[in-house]
Amino acid sequence: MGDPGLSKLQFAPFNSALDVGFWHELTQKKLNEYRLDETPKDIKGYYYNGDSAGLPTRLTLEFSAFDMSAPTPARCCPAMGTLYNTNTLEAFKTADKKLLLEQSANEIWEAIKSGAALENPMLLNKFLLLTFADLKKYHFYYWFCCPALCLPESIPLIQGPVGLDQRLSPKQIQALEHAYDDLCQAEGVTALPYFLIKYDDNTVLVSLLKHYSDFFQGQRTKITVGVYDPCNLAQYPGWPLRNFLVLAAHRWSGSFQSVEVLCFRDRTMQGARDVAHSIIFEVKLPEMAFSPDCPKAVGWEKNQKGGMGPRMVNLSGCMDPKRLAESSVDLNLKLMCWRLVPTLDLDKVVSVKCLLLGAGTLGCNVARTLMGWGVRHVTFVDNAKISYSNPVRQPLYEFEDCLGGGRPKALAAAERLQKIFPGVNASGFNMSIPMPGHPVNFSGVTLEQARRDVERLEQLIESHDVIFLLMDTRESRWLPAVIAASKRKLVINAALGFDTFVVMRHGLKKPKQQGAGDLCPSHLAAPADLGSSLFANIPGYKLGCYFCNDVVAPGDSTRDRTLDQQCTVSRPGLAVIAGALAVELMVSVLQHPEGGYAVASSSDDRMNEPPTSLGLVPHQVLDQYEREGFAFLSKVFNSSHSFLEDLTGLTLLHQETQAAEIWDMSDEETV
Amino acid sequence: MGDPGLSKLQFAPFNSALDVGFWHELTQKKLNEYRLDETPKDIKGYYYNGDSAGLPTRLTLEFSAFDMSAPTPARCCPAMGTLYNTNTLEAFKTADKKLLLEQSANEIWEAIKSGAALENPMLLNKFLLLTFADLKKYHFYYWFCCPALCLPESIPLIQGPVGLDQRLSPKQIQALEHAYDDLCQAEGVTALPYFLIKYDDNTVLVSLLKHYSDFFQGQRTKITVGVYDPCNLAQYPGWPLRNFLVLAAHRWSGSFQSVEVLCFRDRTMQGARDVAHSIIFEVKLPEMAFSPDCPKAVGWEKNQKGGMGPRMVNLSGCMDPKRLAESSVDLNLKLMCWRLVPTLDLDKVVSVKCLLLGAGTLGCNVARTLMGWGVRHVTFVDNAKISYSNPVRQPLYEFEDCLGGGRPKALAAAERLQKIFPGVNASGFNMSIPMPGHPVNFSGVTLEQARRDVERLEQLIESHDVIFLLMDTRESRWLPAVIAASKRKLVINAALGFDTFVVMRHGLKKPKQQGAGDLCPSHLAAPADLGSSLFANIPGYKLGCYFCNDVVAPGDSTRDRTLDQQCTVSRPGLAVIAGALAVELMVSVLQHPEGGYAVASSSDDRMNEPPTSLGLVPHQVLDQYEREGFAFLSKVFNSSHSFLEDLTGLTLLHQETQAAEIWDMSDEETV
Repeated sequence: MGDPGLSKLQFAPFNSALDVGFWHELTQKKLNEYRLDETPKDIKGYYYNGDSAGLPTRLTLEFSAFDMSAPTPARCCPAMGTLYNTNTLEAFKTADKKLLLEQSANEIWEAIKSGAALENPMLLNKFLLLTFADLKKYHFYYWFCCPALCLPESIPLIQGPVGLDQRLSPKQIQALEHAYDDLCQAEGVTALPYFLIKYDDNTVLVSLLKHYSDFFQGQRTKITVGVYDPCNLAQYPGWPLRNFLVLAAHRWSGSFQSVEVLCFRDRTMQGARDVAHSIIFEVKLPEMAFSPDCPKAVGWEKNQKGGMGPRMVNLSGCMDPKRLAESSVDLNLKLMCWRLVPTLDLDKVVSVKCLLLGAGTLGCNVARTLMGWGVRHVTFVDNAKISYSNPVRQPLYEFEDCLGGGRPKALAAAERLQKIFPGVNASGFNMSIPMPGHPVNFSGVTLEQARRDVERLEQLIESHDVIFLLMDTRESRWLPAVIAASKRKLVINAALGFDTFVVMRHGLKKPKQQGAGDLCPSHLAAPADLGSSLFANIPGYKLGCYFCNDVVAPGDSTRDRTLDQQCTVSRPGLAVIAGALAVELMVSVLQHPEGGYAVASSSDDRMNEPPTSLGLVPHQVLDQYEREGFAFLSKVFNSSHSFLEDLTGLTLLHQETQAAEIWDMSDEETV
Repeated sequence: MGDPGLSKLQFAPFNSALDVGFWHELTQKKLNEYRLDETPKDIKGYYYNGDSAGLPTRLTLEFSAFDMSAPTPARCCPAMGTLYNTNTLEAFKTADKKLLLEQSANEIWEAIKSGAALENPMLLNKFLLLTFADLKKYHFYYWFCCPALCLPESIPLIQGPVGLDQRLSPKQIQALEHAYDDLCQAEGVTALPYFLIKYDDNTVLVSLLKHYSDFFQGQRTKITVGVYDPCNLAQYPGWPLRNFLVLAAHRWSGSFQSVEVLCFRDRTMQGARDVAHSIIFEVKLPEMAFSPDCPKAVGWEKNQKGGMGPRMVNLSGCMDPKRLAESSVDLNLKLMCWRLVPTLDLDKVVSVKCLLLGAGTLGCNVARTLMGWGVRHVTFVDNAKISYSNPVRQPLYEFEDCLGGGRPKALAAAERLQKIFPGVNASGFNMSIPMPGHPVNFSGVTLEQARRDVERLEQLIESHDVIFLLMDTRESRWLPAVIAASKRKLVINAALGFDTFVVMRHGLKKPKQQGAGDLCPSHLAAPADLGSSLFANIPGYKLGCYFCNDVVAPGDSTRDRTLDQQCTVSRPGLAVIAGALAVELMVSVLQHPEGGYAVASSSDDRMNEPPTSLGLVPHQVLDQYEREGFAFLSKVFNSSHSFLEDLTGLTLLHQETQAAEIWDMSDEETV
């Protein structure tokens, strides 16, 4: 740009000022909107001509940069830009920056040649932003560019820069202020990036570029223009002047020899407006009228080391760690939607409220996988304390939790979730679930306590969306299965053997108002209409529950068990697998448009056992529960198997089966 | 036992004194030996007649109780007992204690009648111990019984108890001591529970019961007997006297009217032996000679509340928590061996040293399941730091680990294992694994650093038994796969897709000394002998590795990947399942008698792809690695795919495939 010194004009380049809000908004756009789309995006920045001396010339991008209709801050000048956000660091590094610059320069040149820039001077003042957002590390790579067309030669200063107050009288300056303000107001803009000026001792006039022909009529060898100048150096104009001088040279060098430039700077000092520190100078207009070729261009910003290279900002340190954790957790999930499962409705998963009945091996593993899916609301129910054998298999507990008799599992589990991810809403209830065959007046459990436990369980089930049955006995699943069926909550059930497990969802009864609500899911299919559905898929409301396929009612299974017959004797990997599958099952069901009413995909194994002879249990049970409530329940708790088996017809079934067997034998003998 | 007061003899019962060592040993026996065996077991206790006044009369059982040949402590008297250890609390509660007592009483009665008790007086002094050990909670339920036959009537005291020094002179007492000691020594016992005495002014004689006939010859209406008496009350004898009196009544009441009883007590007071506080008294011998029926019996110990009931001791509080954790963890595992998998060789699992390459989602999940299996030696290798998105999916990390840029994963993972279970030997190495196509002079990694990394990896693989490949790229698995193959280590490999995963073991080459070591596992099967093995099971040494089935050599797969193409985009439950399966696979392989050489069970899917055209990679690679070492490796790191593909013949394969395709097409056209 010529030799240093006053004889040749030099320009202070823009410094990109990319606000944290800008990066945050880019993150959101990338995650939720752009995803893999790499096409250029329109963005908007602004610059200001009122900075205190010493501040660098900045072009600012903030959170509003992506909203082209967002208002520009008062007295600031907007600048339009193009965002090139790459999908990979590789693409960022290998982007053809020369080409991008040339393309942009050409657009500016075309706008100058066509006169479009006279109509809309903002076309002279464009910027490019090449970015790669590493959303995992919160590292943002970027390279900023304000394309400036280069004049064919350096620009000789005819009259060096002086303060405006050395050229104009205070009165003239005041007139300039008014004229500028009036024009802004008339145009409805916050600032005019470029404007024309005419002044004499008495008047100061300003005008839009497009009116140059009329406005400059009668001018001789010299014209005066104004530029909204973000620079505050006394000797140099800022970057926006460059393309304007090219326009001036191209458009007016045939008619005028020189141009006087007012670098309009407009600050508030000690409460008073001050434009007197604006600078003014005169340069010779280079001869380039009607030149056809786009001049070469410059504009890529230097990096912090002063070399040509990209910059990187690491925002992981300056963000609130908890918010950072939240968005990081979301990230992994949202990435699934970009290409692999674009139809995945994450909200359905993230917003689901899960009640985990049991905070043991299964409960801990289910909770872990729920966290992985971004589920934010997890409640534990358990009455046990953490024992020394737990932490190696129950991945929410540690050795210290076992000391002093052990902490209550439900509370410790909820606390641990918070430690893993502070954004989770986790709570724990240290309570027992009343069970069939476990008398409620036994071992200190009073009837009143059992009633309170039932009520609390009913409330908990009511206030959650999905109920996980993850206990260590069969019978403890009974009461929540009944309540959840009555309340139409999705039930996911997981249970372990030594090297076998079951993970299932319970059928979801049709809503009560549809009139079919009083029947057990698996009982809605009367024998008559089974024929047609035998090899068809089973709709969710016809699916049974954990007890439907069983011919023994739940009772006390913990009595008289040896140590190795208890729940913990299981291949250690099994609970992990079952827990994960239970959550994946929930997610899959939630993604189905019909949710818990989703049809079960057909399977020969399942279909070979038509639901006729099965599932006699819950129907009558649910009837009784909904009619008699706790009075019925307390009978169940205090009775052995036989009460439920009588009620549900299993006793009769057993008798019939025995009778059938006897008949068969005698039949054979008499043949 | 008659009215209180001195006129009728009364006895101080034994207090059971069950040492912590006894319960510890019972735990071990139950876990490793008895398992589900509920048959009665012989055990051994002892009692002492030298306690200071004020101490209760005790029958002590300690860790040695299960070893019938264990020596009895000096000057103590052994007592033989029977242990009834039940499998369940239920069985403990419902055990027929009346029957057990009667059986034992009958044995004593038979020993009295047959004269066996005269030969072996210990038969008079038996005890029963009914127990249930809740090994999960370290609660031990027990009920102790010293069966005592009841005489038909209460025993009138002819002469009330007085101190021995009121009956004998110091000289006589000294003579008694000598006589007793000499007899013990002659018999080679620590104490004589019962013995016969004759004394006059000048001499004191003692003798074994079996010699009563000679010894009592010439006695008139009264005989004198001694009993080793654990009681230290001045007015009452201890329990052992009871059955002896029955024996005396049964055997001698026909010949003698009364018996003088010396309750022999033998303590050390201020450094000097003292038996003078022994008590002596005379009772009328009840008439029961030749009575045929077993008298009724008593003996179940009262509990702490003074009622008839069992006792419970909770040892969880007084044990070292870390040791408690260790044995609790072992318990769950050992329970598997009781009934479900009696042939399970837990030692093979617990003692295995596992090297986890990768401490991310897979690494954390694998480590958790290893802990569940009781594996005690786990080493992590990873070069990453914990980021905010990790804790919800990587179950060894918490939010706090992410702060300040994140802790190194390998170190944090090892620390967490210690927190979960202090008995584990866990360590972490924060280091990189050099990779093909990732040049070692790039981004600050010097050749020297790469050489050190390779060396350290070689050492780590050498010092472990099983190598888990759990990294996030394909190419990072290459070097450890090569080294582990060369060192004949079992490799378990797990890798994730979005909703797919692979969990596999690598083939284990035959040991070098067998001469087949220089060939790739999957290459040992030359086309000629494939025919026979096509539908047979594949032996472990013929199985391939992760790279064997691939026709592209590993290279840099991380370049130019969009965020959603990176490893973390995976159904959250998947890593959990894959991690657990990887460990279960390891356990299954370890249980095979041939370990890593175990045959792969046949599967049509696998067999349909005969290993002929696959698996060209590792053979030549291993050759070169073992010949050239790091010089070869550095070429691999710094080269693109083509180097390895040239080396292994893949380039040729590609060319041939292309040639074949071209030929096919022209062939068709000319037909």
